[in-house]
Amino acid sequence: MGFYDSCVKAKKGGMVLASLGDSQRDDILEAFAAQLVKGAAKILSANAIDMENAKGNIPDTMLDRLFLDNGRIDDIASAVRDVKNLEDPLGIVLDERVLQSGLRLLKTTVPLGVVGIIYEARPNVTADSIALCVKSGNACVLKVGSEAILSSMEIAKCFDEAINSLGYDVCFVYLLEDTSREASTAMMRAKGFIDVLIPRGGAGLIQAVVDNATIPVLETGAGNCHLFIDSSAKFDMALEIAINAKTQRPSVCNAIETMLVHTDIAIEFLPLLYEAFDGYGVEIRGCERSLEILGGNKITTASEEDFYTEYNDMICALKIVGGVEEAIEHVNNYSTSHSEAIVTEDTANAELFLSNVDSAVVYHNASTRFTDGGVFGLGAEIGISTQKLHARGPMALRELTSYKYKVYGQGQVR
Amino acid sequence: MGFYDSCVKAKKGGMVLASLGDSQRDDILEAFAAQLVKGAAKILSANAIDMENAKGNIPDTMLDRLFLDNGRIDDIASAVRDVKNLEDPLGIVLDERVLQSGLRLLKTTVPLGVVGIIYEARPNVTADSIALCVKSGNACVLKVGSEAILSSMEIAKCFDEAINSLGYDVCFVYLLEDTSREASTAMMRAKGFIDVLIPRGGAGLIQAVVDNATIPVLETGAGNCHLFIDSSAKFDMALEIAINAKTQRPSVCNAIETMLVHTDIAIEFLPLLYEAFDGYGVEIRGCERSLEILGGNKITTASEEDFYTEYNDMICALKIVGGVEEAIEHVNNYSTSHSEAIVTEDTANAELFLSNVDSAVVYHNASTRFTDGGVFGLGAEIGISTQKLHARGPMALRELTSYKYKVYGQGQVR
Repeated sequence: MGFYDSCVKAKKGGMVLASLGDSQRDDILEAFAAQLVKGAAKILSANAIDMENAKGNIPDTMLDRLFLDNGRIDDIASAVRDVKNLEDPLGIVLDERVLQSGLRLLKTTVPLGVVGIIYEARPNVTADSIALCVKSGNACVLKVGSEAILSSMEIAKCFDEAINSLGYDVCFVYLLEDTSREASTAMMRAKGFIDVLIPRGGAGLIQAVVDNATIPVLETGAGNCHLFIDSSAKFDMALEIAINAKTQRPSVCNAIETMLVHTDIAIEFLPLLYEAFDGYGVEIRGCERSLEILGGNKITTASEEDFYTEYNDMICALKIVGGVEEAIEHVNNYSTSHSEAIVTEDTANAELFLSNVDSAVVYHNASTRFTDGGVFGLGAEIGISTQKLHARGPMALRELTSYKYKVYGQGQVR
Repeated sequence: MGFYDSCVKAKKGGMVLASLGDSQRDDILEAFAAQLVKGAAKILSANAIDMENAKGNIPDTMLDRLFLDNGRIDDIASAVRDVKNLEDPLGIVLDERVLQSGLRLLKTTVPLGVVGIIYEARPNVTADSIALCVKSGNACVLKVGSEAILSSMEIAKCFDEAINSLGYDVCFVYLLEDTSREASTAMMRAKGFIDVLIPRGGAGLIQAVVDNATIPVLETGAGNCHLFIDSSAKFDMALEIAINAKTQRPSVCNAIETMLVHTDIAIEFLPLLYEAFDGYGVEIRGCERSLEILGGNKITTASEEDFYTEYNDMICALKIVGGVEEAIEHVNNYSTSHSEAIVTEDTANAELFLSNVDSAVVYHNASTRFTDGGVFGLGAEIGISTQKLHARGPMALRELTSYKYKVYGQGQVR
């Protein structure tokens, strides 16, 4: 069956899913979780071939994300059950009112329809995407990185066996077997077939989707995050947050890439920052003024490009600024609008920063590393939106819904 | 000043607007309304030239929408004051919680930033768009149909004089003087300059924007709406709703274009419907079965294309269906997902229709003509969204906002 025919089947499946109650969707997820464990041997055989094929072709960190064993399959099944146990995002009444005409108006949440997800070679994302979409009543069209295709096909088979065992003869999940670039392009342009496209992965993947998609995209993830140390900051708090935000997990999107330091404390604070970062092996690329203070043999000069860069590595750009206004201006110019923080004892400056920095999440006296669906109490996460339409910041089940108006009358005309 | 430089000025203006309180934004709108009345003579002179230039080039209905006099300017000013008096859509707390780490999280509404609006030759839409954007804290980039450019430039001048009188030396509103197609295309591709683009106008304009835009679009308006008469419908109610939904204002998007009639009542109901529609001069284009019942000399055969058509005219497509399921399937196949209605005394069928028809607004025993921001209690309307992301159905001030998370800590790290 071709791509568009399969999408049409998924669309019909989505309508069936949308008509199910929460407990029916939960039954599907429970059966899926059970089937994942039951089918572990087959998944592991497929994964062994994926691993064999991938060796030498992708870096070790990616190999580790590809690798499955029984423990990891148990974790995947238990993550499916965690999603199952979340609150039903459908049928939530957002507004209810009686209009002048006597019409009763009900605004309630509904699924988006068919959600397209393009992601990298991580088999667990296959199961996780299925769980989030089913729980929110959406069918999904999935495209996994080619290295994880065999493992993912076995996981999708487990899902199909689960729904078949419950008597469903429909398509809720369509995993593309074609892992070519052309298949991705077809997804990005499937107008009328896929309602929204979500890239889950690194900056390269996201940029490719944003550049090529003609269907609506929920842009996620790219995080050029900033930490501004104001003149009134407590130095020990500032250093602790800087180290945490930069070094605890430098490869993730909510780690910081640039530090801004108030000029009034630069001479005192920069040597302490250098020492702290040096202890963690963080390379600093600084502005001219910071080089004067620290000396050119300790740090290198930051180019304009550096301030735009999401290093995802043990590198930090550094700039001395005249105050909170200049810090805000810098952030709004260079940031990807993900997460930013200010460390200050001045609450007026804090509120100015939090109000005027145009990013999804803005922190006062805390690390940017907290930007996460789980931490924010959403129970899960399908990505962190850096756009302003539809959803901003961590996205989970509610962000996979739309709404509709149901209007009840007794023959009213206008 | 070129297009992109002006957009950058608007972006900076948007940041200033976003930082103002509701009463400051209200002061701007009050000054704008006053200036419109004060500047009426200049607006009317410009409008006279617009009218002179347009005569013979556009249909009379469009000429009427272009025409201004003192009464209409008073109406425009009073519409600006109506928007001013609406509830502030900014700073609304959507969620507030203390996380495990002790962080206090605040999710509040914020402006989108720079809103682009492309519309037809209607000077009142210039003032209305400015009012809605200013009230919601957004700067705007406006492109009006060429026939209304001089009137609109005078209206925009009134706005600039209003903000200058209040001491603002910034750009909140950028009206393109270039009314060429190229200028529209530049707007549709102004990635990084315009946050969201809203077409306000007919199907042709909307389609052009949807096809060519690379920035996010809020798709509005196209309305191929349906009315389904179930077998248990009260005939008098069905006829009254049919006449209202089709004839009260056939040119608007919430008028119906297709009627679906349950086969069990077709022989009895169709002659009544024909008689009623005939009295209003409505031409019927029916399916084969309806031709058999009514006779080929009374109505013509509907083509497949007819069922996709938004006539905006005194024409109605007609199809006999086997029941509510077939009605739902027909609607989901042919509709633009705007507004649909079922007339039935069977509440189970009503709920099936309302739940499974995938449109923004679904009615039981009421006319589709009620789909309107004012009627729905939103106080205004910038369009009716037919898409599922961000906003669905009537859009007003709240739909011109996004949200952000402000997070307050005492030094927390992860």
